[in-house]
Amino acid sequence: MADKLTDEARDTKLGPLMTAGWAHDAERDALTKTFKFADFAEAFAFMTRVAIVADKMDHHPEWFNVYNRVEVTLTTHDANGLSDLDVSLATTMDGFA
Amino acid sequence: MADKLTDEARDTKLGPLMTAGWAHDAERDALTKTFKFADFAEAFAFMTRVAIVADKMDHHPEWFNVYNRVEVTLTTHDANGLSDLDVSLATTMDGFA
Repeated sequence: MADKLTDEARDTKLGPLMTAGWAHDAERDALTKTFKFADFAEAFAFMTRVAIVADKMDHHPEWFNVYNRVEVTLTTHDANGLSDLDVSLATTMDGFA
Repeated sequence: MADKLTDEARDTKLGPLMTAGWAHDAERDALTKTFKFADFAEAFAFMTRVAIVADKMDHHPEWFNVYNRVEVTLTTHDANGLSDLDVSLATTMDGFA
């Protein structure tokens, strides 16, 4: 089971994600980001690559898609907030986008 | 460009979809349904089949996924409400689910 990020871990790990366009939803202790692509096919191709990695991690995003837009929310229900799994999945998504 | 459904078409075409679990969002003139699957892999497999058909139709769903749940909203922006494209995509989704 994933542990909730410590304050120290937040300082070092969340900073780079904020710089990369992620936002912190304090109420849910979640990371959110909206990805935009050229069209639906590109957006869904991104989702497919992420889906395969996420299922392998057994850590799944909450995401909304309409046409070329993908709105992502990451949090770890078991940890009741952000864990290393979210940092890892966010970084993977940025690498694919 | 798709035409908005006439009252007559709504009577004949929306009834079967309501019976199949779709709801009508009157404010947006949209069809909504929540699909549940055994797990994430099944939910995403469903989304992938739908995505291929939707892109071929050039008519895309609004959808939200978390784990095994897929919440779908269908409407036709160009028609400012429901068109035959939504009836067709809804029927396709039911066939895949």
